Amino acid sequence: MNITPETIWEDVRAIREQAPLVHNITNYVVMNTTANALLALGASPVMAHARAEVEEMAGISSALVINIGTLSDPWISSMNLAAQKADSCNIPIIIDPVGAGATQYRTTTATTFIQAFFPEIIRGNGSEIMALCQDGVATKGVDSTSESSLALDSAKHLNRTTDSVVCITGETDYVVDKTGVIAIKNGHPMMPRVTGLGCTASALCGAFAAVNSRYATAVAHAMAVMGIAGEIAAETAKGPGSLQTGFIDALYCLTRDDIERYFRE
Amino acid sequence: MNITPETIWEDVRAIREQAPLVHNITNYVVMNTTANALLALGASPVMAHARAEVEEMAGISSALVINIGTLSDPWISSMNLAAQKADSCNIPIIIDPVGAGATQYRTTTATTFIQAFFPEIIRGNGSEIMALCQDGVATKGVDSTSESSLALDSAKHLNRTTDSVVCITGETDYVVDKTGVIAIKNGHPMMPRVTGLGCTASALCGAFAAVNSRYATAVAHAMAVMGIAGEIAAETAKGPGSLQTGFIDALYCLTRDDIERYFRE
Amino acid sequence: MNITPETIWEDVRAIREQAPLVHNITNYVVMNTTANALLALGASPVMAHARAEVEEMAGISSALVINIGTLSDPWISSMNLAAQKADSCNIPIIIDPVGAGATQYRTTTATTFIQAFFPEIIRGNGSEIMALCQDGVATKGVDSTSESSLALDSAKHLNRTTDSVVCITGETDYVVDKTGVIAIKNGHPMMPRVTGLGCTASALCGAFAAVNSRYATAVAHAMAVMGIAGEIAAETAKGPGSLQTGFIDALYCLTRDDIERYFRE
Repeated sequence: MNITPETIWEDVRAIREQAPLVHNITNYVVMNTTANALLALGASPVMAHARAEVEEMAGISSALVINIGTLSDPWISSMNLAAQKADSCNIPIIIDPVGAGATQYRTTTATTFIQAFFPEIIRGNGSEIMALCQDGVATKGVDSTSESSLALDSAKHLNRTTDSVVCITGETDYVVDKTGVIAIKNGHPMMPRVTGLGCTASALCGAFAAVNSRYATAVAHAMAVMGIAGEIAAETAKGPGSLQTGFIDALYCLTRDDIERYFRE
Repeated sequence: MNITPETIWEDVRAIREQAPLVHNITNYVVMNTTANALLALGASPVMAHARAEVEEMAGISSALVINIGTLSDPWISSMNLAAQKADSCNIPIIIDPVGAGATQYRTTTATTFIQAFFPEIIRGNGSEIMALCQDGVATKGVDSTSESSLALDSAKHLNRTTDSVVCITGETDYVVDKTGVIAIKNGHPMMPRVTGLGCTASALCGAFAAVNSRYATAVAHAMAVMGIAGEIAAETAKGPGSLQTGFIDALYCLTRDDIERYFRE
Repeated sequence: MNITPETIWEDVRAIREQAPLVHNITNYVVMNTTANALLALGASPVMAHARAEVEEMAGISSALVINIGTLSDPWISSMNLAAQKADSCNIPIIIDPVGAGATQYRTTTATTFIQAFFPEIIRGNGSEIMALCQDGVATKGVDSTSESSLALDSAKHLNRTTDSVVCITGETDYVVDKTGVIAIKNGHPMMPRVTGLGCTASALCGAFAAVNSRYATAVAHAMAVMGIAGEIAAETAKGPGSLQTGFIDALYCLTRDDIERYFRE
């Protein structure tokens, strides 16, 4: 498992050429910014959550992104229907367990979904990933040297039990599959001050997985592109408002040269 | 049916003076940007979807905009209640059939709504308009020379059977009523890379129809203003992020001189 | 009750240091921009509305912000559950009665909520505050000299009957508690042309109340910071689009010097 500016660029070009339809069942907070990020990258976003149409929508899509922020029971029901259809169509499922660990409802919903569908990709921050496998990692006890390494242990455990590619985002992003770990060091410290950039990262995983079935590589590419676009935007941003605007512009304008200049493993 | 910079400007001024209340039952993705576009233009947006209040809200509004993106059954029920009230109050109804043709649920919902309420205005892209009248246009067979002309045939058929003003947006926007077709050539190729600008176009139809009861003219004015604001924004935009910001600024700052300089039939 | 640049700055610094979790049950239109404003200021926003989790979420939060825009029955039920929990945990409740007076549904929902929970803070525009206590102020008859003074009478009446701190926002913002009235004169006339800045003001009240239990002072600080950030943004904004972006940037960058330079009572 290895990524280079060349492999990243190939996927970006494929997304721009194929404009894959990415079906999102996501939270209210980020719907607009997620759709704009997918459009700026070159993908085609669709948001649909009604039981009456999620199967049909998933059936014409190239990836399904499930995000449990602003969750409620009718949405869980639709997420399950859509995921069954995605499974039967062999399109990749990405889950973003927003807020797992914060409430039992979110932890249970995410865990149950993962056990039912073994999604191709799980992306969260360190505490969310840890919340998804407390049992497994609890056996490691309190000897783990840091929260970051504890999250990485959780990710490895989660990958072993589900075979999902697991991505932890933070100052360094980690992508874990059975062959190893890729670390990506792009990004900017102001990015967590923009709401929903984590959700956007999960949505971009959908776009990359739609054009590249080597999912660990696709996720690593998505994280590199997120971070690079954030760094480019940060160069002229005056705060998180202009960072959000510049991030969308940077996704749209991204060139092979940008990737070569900014990419850091 | 004829529009000029002068007639466009009259409606813009009327919106700024009257600040008509436009009631939107619209999708989650675009609520924020739609409200901002209406405010920037000078109208007063309100979003309300609860069965308990949609009739009262429609009853104090000057236009009702129905948008079927992120649809679900409770929302359909509220759309119907609001439309009944709008009909009884003689305020214009605008429907945006987002995603008609993509799922049966959306096609059926849009078609049923149109047959029930004969809305004053229908606005969609080419494939949505075609999805609304496949039977009618199917009789034309495969001889139509292009998708664009097929959409225009569909729009004319839809206008004949419903008496609605039908607007197809795309590189050229077409407004169809029984007296003929207006074509508006404003706009910028980056606009489709901003999510929800089509939905914004429908919302602006609501504002223009609220001050001008010659609905075909009102819709043509709305499309010209959309396109002109997009062109002005594109002059300094670095991508779809800054295009969205600049579009709102341009709506707010729009002058008679801008309209005279940019308007293209 | 007295506020100075020094007391405002102390609260801003406390928010940045403590990053209080602010639980919002708010409307679809403003969720993204509200979350971004809280993040830019230094607080931690969370949006959650499911009956299954609102109590747990309120239980780990430092303030609860209830906003009745885009209301529906399931959301009212969750607002009540969350407020019961907030009461039992002694965290402040802020209510924003969006659209009270526009429909009976909104007026009744806001009034019923206030009578049930006596929220620590009520923030609305003049007509919303008046709609909340028409009986009380009706006894004053038609002799009130202006709408503004009528709203202030309503706010005082509301404060007497509920003991809530009541905030009316407008060209001048008024904060009313039993010890008197604070008037804050910051802000810019373009701010009402950005959707949801009133809702953002209520959310910022949550952040300030989370770090300062003298609630009238906390609210006055929040209104001063809103207005100052708006004025800073307006200096370079070309319209409401760039004003929104610049407002978020200004919240993030706000210094003690800014507050000293711009604050106006």
